Amino acid sequence: MCCRVTLVSSMEFCLALDVGGTKLAAGMVSEDGHLVGEVHVPTPHDVGREELFAATTALLDQLLARFGDAGHRSVVACGVGCGGPMVGHGDTVSPLNIPAWRGFPLRERLESHTGVPVAVDNDAKALALGEGWVGTASGCRDFLAMVVSTGIGGGIVLDGHLLDGSAGNAGHIGHLMVEPDGRLCACGAYGCLEAEASGTAIAAITGAPPSEASVTVIERTGRLVGRAVASVANLLDLPLALVGGSVALGYGAPFFAAANAEVQKRARLEFSASTQVLPVGLGSSAPLVGAGAVGWRGIDRLTDRSSASIR
Amino acid sequence: MCCRVTLVSSMEFCLALDVGGTKLAAGMVSEDGHLVGEVHVPTPHDVGREELFAATTALLDQLLARFGDAGHRSVVACGVGCGGPMVGHGDTVSPLNIPAWRGFPLRERLESHTGVPVAVDNDAKALALGEGWVGTASGCRDFLAMVVSTGIGGGIVLDGHLLDGSAGNAGHIGHLMVEPDGRLCACGAYGCLEAEASGTAIAAITGAPPSEASVTVIERTGRLVGRAVASVANLLDLPLALVGGSVALGYGAPFFAAANAEVQKRARLEFSASTQVLPVGLGSSAPLVGAGAVGWRGIDRLTDRSSASIR
Repeated sequence: MCCRVTLVSSMEFCLALDVGGTKLAAGMVSEDGHLVGEVHVPTPHDVGREELFAATTALLDQLLARFGDAGHRSVVACGVGCGGPMVGHGDTVSPLNIPAWRGFPLRERLESHTGVPVAVDNDAKALALGEGWVGTASGCRDFLAMVVSTGIGGGIVLDGHLLDGSAGNAGHIGHLMVEPDGRLCACGAYGCLEAEASGTAIAAITGAPPSEASVTVIERTGRLVGRAVASVANLLDLPLALVGGSVALGYGAPFFAAANAEVQKRARLEFSASTQVLPVGLGSSAPLVGAGAVGWRGIDRLTDRSSASIR
Repeated sequence: MCCRVTLVSSMEFCLALDVGGTKLAAGMVSEDGHLVGEVHVPTPHDVGREELFAATTALLDQLLARFGDAGHRSVVACGVGCGGPMVGHGDTVSPLNIPAWRGFPLRERLESHTGVPVAVDNDAKALALGEGWVGTASGCRDFLAMVVSTGIGGGIVLDGHLLDGSAGNAGHIGHLMVEPDGRLCACGAYGCLEAEASGTAIAAITGAPPSEASVTVIERTGRLVGRAVASVANLLDLPLALVGGSVALGYGAPFFAAANAEVQKRARLEFSASTQVLPVGLGSSAPLVGAGAVGWRGIDRLTDRSSASIR
């Protein structure tokens, strides 16, 4: 167990929870995007759904205990970033890399436990929200944020709003086609970005961990990510793509150089020609700040349920 | 000059203008999406920018004259669908196939002429608005509408809103990459959908007008459109793509069968697997109903300038 606690002011806070395949993390995120206090534990494996939920609530309780009664009272919402897929915009979650939860009603269960409104969203969409709030895309109304890690996910902010889509999965850039006759993807299609440039794909192609990839493989990975970014920039008129995730950030400069070179080659319209690919800015605090942003967005939505019009 | 006039009720109307490379059309669109009255003239070519604008205003004046003073008073806005590109969300237009207008301040000039608020948008985005309002996508919050004609354009409605993007060009599906090593596109990239499946591309590939294409070419065109639709369905979590335009509608059933077969092959995620490609529903009235929707949307925006938040 690792734990950091910093001073709590009298502001309101959102409880933030990041549910990952490797670790569970929790923290408190202020109204202006500061992460205070952070606790995490390795994600328990080979356990049942209730045991995993008990580990999650124990982590939240431990965090809250550190802040005392005043801290507890300052919590007005809870936001969760979680691996997909999920249905009903987070009503139930089935994170691919956490087999214990299949159709788990995380939102309802957390609301019962915490007593505050809970919003659950895809972790890559949470990343986009966090980066647009207080990260590299702060002040930018149109951008893509993506994670190139074991898998590939993403979130898109357009016209100042995070895109949700019909079932809440908008931003799923891992399944944009980049090689028409490429590798078979886990989704059943061929040549998806995830089947060509994810950590899993790189390991399958090279027979070695992605961290041991040659410069040739690193540049190919950057090129394919750039190819997908260019298509999205042309399609959606957005000038910025932020990329995080262990594979992209581990590869660093040569990856980003290859991605940007490919974008320059393939995004040639007046509005897309200056599209940039940059690393995410929030570093290790990104998942929890993003989860906090999901929670604050949930509160905003509860208080502004204006019906949308397509006109 | 062709002219049709139908009965005008006492409702409010939006003056609708469609600026195309072949013809200029104008009509009145009611608050519930009915098109009443329609006039059109061939688009004058080999004329200057002011002569073209004079032809446009003459057409509008002629339409209004048919409805008399009461009709004139019932007009509360004007909406325009126009070929791209444009800047400042329609502040100035430079329709590719109308060389007389380069950086032409169409909105401002029409506001001066008509005395009502004018909204200008891309004609493919107008199509999406119209189809979502009273066409095949009526009641659908998440869909793509596209035109496969001389060029290829599109508009996307997501989460119940028409996507605009940074400079107003969102939906530009013609420049999604479908063949990494494909033909050189007019934009400067290779293998864009427009470089492979537009009427212009088909003519260049086959050496004959698109209307004379073989079944093989028709099916290839449908397949490439389906490839792009599948990527968009996976990326944006939208279950419906409507396709219009002379090439797609002229090819008809074999085109749509090939497009749907390709979508089934490449959109395999739980949320994208049932994506459908259908013809647009508004037929020949689509451009003016869409332009009317642009005008009504402009009015809505004038009366609801709430600032967007990405939370």
